[in-house]
Amino acid sequence: MIGLWLEDGQLRLETNLPRPIPPDDEALVHVTQAGICNTDLELIRGYYPYTGVLGHEFVGVVERAPPGFERLEGQRVVGEINAACGECAPCDAGRDTHCTNRTVLGIVARDGAFAEYLTLPARNLHVVPDNVPDDAAVFVEPLAAALEIQEQITLRPRDRLLVVGDGKLGHLIARTLVSIGCDLCVAGRHDDKLAMLAELGIDTFAVGPRASIDGEIVARLRDFDVTIECTGNPEGFGLARRALRPRGTLVLKSTYADRLTLDVSSLVVDEITLVGSRCGPFEPALALLGDGSVYVEDLITDRYPLSAGIAALDHARRPGALKVLMQIS
Amino acid sequence: MIGLWLEDGQLRLETNLPRPIPPDDEALVHVTQAGICNTDLELIRGYYPYTGVLGHEFVGVVERAPPGFERLEGQRVVGEINAACGECAPCDAGRDTHCTNRTVLGIVARDGAFAEYLTLPARNLHVVPDNVPDDAAVFVEPLAAALEIQEQITLRPRDRLLVVGDGKLGHLIARTLVSIGCDLCVAGRHDDKLAMLAELGIDTFAVGPRASIDGEIVARLRDFDVTIECTGNPEGFGLARRALRPRGTLVLKSTYADRLTLDVSSLVVDEITLVGSRCGPFEPALALLGDGSVYVEDLITDRYPLSAGIAALDHARRPGALKVLMQIS
Repeated sequence: MIGLWLEDGQLRLETNLPRPIPPDDEALVHVTQAGICNTDLELIRGYYPYTGVLGHEFVGVVERAPPGFERLEGQRVVGEINAACGECAPCDAGRDTHCTNRTVLGIVARDGAFAEYLTLPARNLHVVPDNVPDDAAVFVEPLAAALEIQEQITLRPRDRLLVVGDGKLGHLIARTLVSIGCDLCVAGRHDDKLAMLAELGIDTFAVGPRASIDGEIVARLRDFDVTIECTGNPEGFGLARRALRPRGTLVLKSTYADRLTLDVSSLVVDEITLVGSRCGPFEPALALLGDGSVYVEDLITDRYPLSAGIAALDHARRPGALKVLMQIS
Repeated sequence: MIGLWLEDGQLRLETNLPRPIPPDDEALVHVTQAGICNTDLELIRGYYPYTGVLGHEFVGVVERAPPGFERLEGQRVVGEINAACGECAPCDAGRDTHCTNRTVLGIVARDGAFAEYLTLPARNLHVVPDNVPDDAAVFVEPLAAALEIQEQITLRPRDRLLVVGDGKLGHLIARTLVSIGCDLCVAGRHDDKLAMLAELGIDTFAVGPRASIDGEIVARLRDFDVTIECTGNPEGFGLARRALRPRGTLVLKSTYADRLTLDVSSLVVDEITLVGSRCGPFEPALALLGDGSVYVEDLITDRYPLSAGIAALDHARRPGALKVLMQIS
């Protein structure tokens, strides 16, 4: 089969990969469409050593399911990316996304979604309702990650929230938060991306390319109850930190290429809470897409066939891009 | 009056300071006894620019109280150290320890407790019950800071807790936590200080002088639900971080001389929560001392007259020291 293979920091199109054979409890999924995430770009840059088929955002059709899951065969599905062992302490405590022995689709020791076929444990799969098209379903994984914030912290309707970053994750997070009625602002560097949010009735604020903190920013972007950092760069982190009120909460949604040097004492003096946040729940994400609470299809910048996957990743890397899709079957 | 005056990083004994005149809403307190805190040592080292009388842990007797607070006159009191304006946004939101315009006893723009007299807003004062001796009451401020942890996070009886640091703050925190029945361990560098905790039935673990993470430490000090960092040094922070399970909580109780360089990405991947924690509630601290739930007097290493205050601070700086007191009147 065709697939995009990452090895030693080099991504190449392979046309003769063996079709995966699912282990006993796993399903074989024919991938329909896959989305490119910043994590894919960071894996290529060597943020974490990984060898295998890249990609973890997908929608596909189950071609073969293991015993007990036959109802999945022929169904359109999306899939949770962490495959857990079910036996370690985190699994035992119900934290299977933190399984000590986990593999992660297209990220850790498990071939991913930028290929014609993938396998995942059948329990990881969620059937996509008929009223959610493939173009929306391919967003379920990052949308679930956006919803993880609401699993971790309690947001009140009057809370003042600042999302730092107008990229695709910032968009998804803002779109999930506006639906719960918070006082929301998104700070970003891209006028066109901010304009899309403004059209949805979301307050936006353009910051300079270096997010330099001038008087206007200090005056407007401060005293937030919760800030959510989605840029993965130190300037974004700095803005998210400075914009918080004392006893506020900073949610970290992005990973960083390097270590960050922080004024930890100021976190103590201001009693700031930092919350790292990663993968989230799929069913609420499917529900929000199904009932129209969150619209995502305008985030699709372009789509490429899998055979042009290298070009697709190049496109995703450009500053103006939001979600770049690969059409696989 | 006599007092210890800090200016340009130099601490000196002044014998001719003017006795403070309390503003309209403040009380004049004759200081009986004061305790030395690491923050005092850090202020001398220049961690934060401060000029004035040092000291913020005290017990004293009210000599004059403002109208409406006459009942305080002649009473033994302890005092909350943050003097709030009552008018800014944090005050309005009930977060007066984070008042934008606050002064802080012996720390920010307000003469402190290493002197014969101090003034504080009358509402900051708490009467000490008769069954709490001065030697215990002088611990109320740091004991309240220890209790702030329980104001900020929910601890469950089965939670595994690690306190990193066997200094005076680590001791107070451990002593408040053991009373709620958590599965508690204290890691520290000082055999004698750990032995005191072991006598109270608290599990302890000795780490090397550099807190190097050898096999034994990795095996024992991991998978904690909550870790509490009380050392103020990067090795202590590193241990508190590594000892956490995924989705665990790291409470920061100490300030740091320098900025720390952190692997923030790992906080995201492991969904760690960091909570900065500072001043806490005085009434519960007084209650724990009053009903004997927490015993503190064994933490007194030595006591000096105020006239030997410089020597007292030198003693507090020595590695073996726990609480060094100044006897003032």
